[in-house]
Amino acid sequence: MTPADEATFGVLLDIDGVLYVGDEPIVGAHEALTQLREQSAGVRLVTNTTSRSRRDVVEHLRELGFEVSHEEVLTPAAMAVSHCEEHGYESVAMLVSEKLREDLAALKELKSGARADAVVLGDLGDGFTAEVLNGAFRQLMDGAELVSLQHNRYWRRKDGLALDVGAYAAALEFASGREGVVVGKPSEAFFKAAMSDIGLELAVMVGDDVEADVGGAMAAGLPGVLVRTGKFRQDALSERVTPTAIVDSIADFPDLLARIFQGSS
Amino acid sequence: MTPADEATFGVLLDIDGVLYVGDEPIVGAHEALTQLREQSAGVRLVTNTTSRSRRDVVEHLRELGFEVSHEEVLTPAAMAVSHCEEHGYESVAMLVSEKLREDLAALKELKSGARADAVVLGDLGDGFTAEVLNGAFRQLMDGAELVSLQHNRYWRRKDGLALDVGAYAAALEFASGREGVVVGKPSEAFFKAAMSDIGLELAVMVGDDVEADVGGAMAAGLPGVLVRTGKFRQDALSERVTPTAIVDSIADFPDLLARIFQGSS
Repeated sequence: MTPADEATFGVLLDIDGVLYVGDEPIVGAHEALTQLREQSAGVRLVTNTTSRSRRDVVEHLRELGFEVSHEEVLTPAAMAVSHCEEHGYESVAMLVSEKLREDLAALKELKSGARADAVVLGDLGDGFTAEVLNGAFRQLMDGAELVSLQHNRYWRRKDGLALDVGAYAAALEFASGREGVVVGKPSEAFFKAAMSDIGLELAVMVGDDVEADVGGAMAAGLPGVLVRTGKFRQDALSERVTPTAIVDSIADFPDLLARIFQGSS
Repeated sequence: MTPADEATFGVLLDIDGVLYVGDEPIVGAHEALTQLREQSAGVRLVTNTTSRSRRDVVEHLRELGFEVSHEEVLTPAAMAVSHCEEHGYESVAMLVSEKLREDLAALKELKSGARADAVVLGDLGDGFTAEVLNGAFRQLMDGAELVSLQHNRYWRRKDGLALDVGAYAAALEFASGREGVVVGKPSEAFFKAAMSDIGLELAVMVGDDVEADVGGAMAAGLPGVLVRTGKFRQDALSERVTPTAIVDSIADFPDLLARIFQGSS
């Protein structure tokens, strides 16, 4: 096994569906995480969540027995803050859940009636009303940039399937005639930020979402490994993305990683 | 001037923005309509309205002094009925305004909890809630076809710009991964139905919407004439569609038509 201080690669792990599903840790996930930290130059947990703050994500992981630090967890909200700061946006309209606001506290929220430089689009759930969408649309038509936390099509709620952020972004993009920027997975910037955080040019991404996790990583030039847990579906494999590798679960990934990088460092 | 019984072409007119704007008839529109009836084999008024029933459209035209019959007015709701009947859809979920329901009365509305063959999407205005959209989305994922009355990007309400049917359709199409069918303008079927109603293969379309009216007609193989009234904007001309001709208003169209078909019949 390669000692961490000699490793030339990092490991990026999606969280929900890879380390746990709901309140149940994946069997062998705790041991796998420990092992991956020893094998690699660093592990970052990269999530597309729009319903939990980074603090909530870390707390939930700890409740399930995963020892993680805040610095190891990267969320699209943090990326949205960097994006807006880099572009010098002074006033931002936020369509995000209450829980996410603490992660966006560095941004100045729009005063009522003022013109926004950007519309940050997260998941408002039942807060997505025609009035809210029309308000965001008018900001876009007045020149604001659409900054979507992610661009997923839908997700499975307790009461059934529900439109996800990508669907509402699609409505606003179609109406305004302009594409927005996506700061979460599968955006290349998100993967680059995670690697720059580890300080290396190479990392292996592991996820249960064949498009956002695996496809996104591969488009950014990284190996993408799909797990057969979480939202994995056999029929999704016939789609546009061919993963670098597929494993039954995160428990099988350390062995695969050891074989991939055998003798390479 | 060509007598109507010898004319080899029909005339298709958009209504709002071409014959009137709001409650004000366009200057010279009454005389133009009379003249066009004499010049052509038949006039049909083709609207993309999703907020008024056919009866309301006819009444409003009559209030403004236009003598029109119900048979001369074609709406996307009528097209939706034909489309659903042709496909043998037995149960339809309707996301349309109350006013439009009389034009869809021939269709059987979904019973609560049942599975729909089609989702007919019109303008629900502030009735577009996350709950309504998620309900429609689940029907699409269970196999229903999305039948959009039109696919406009946005419209100008009294209180400002608002997302139009096309934007909500885009959200549902992105999430479901399947394109719906559009029965109103710019769909070719809509223009073909209007011509088949007149009984001719050729008609000239006049509208104020460069994409839905002019672009749609031209894609269906018809000349498309743009008027500089209604929603006409100079900057829209730089876009994808180059109209067959542009006139200041419908008042100038009979002369143009006479020149186009001079000696052709």
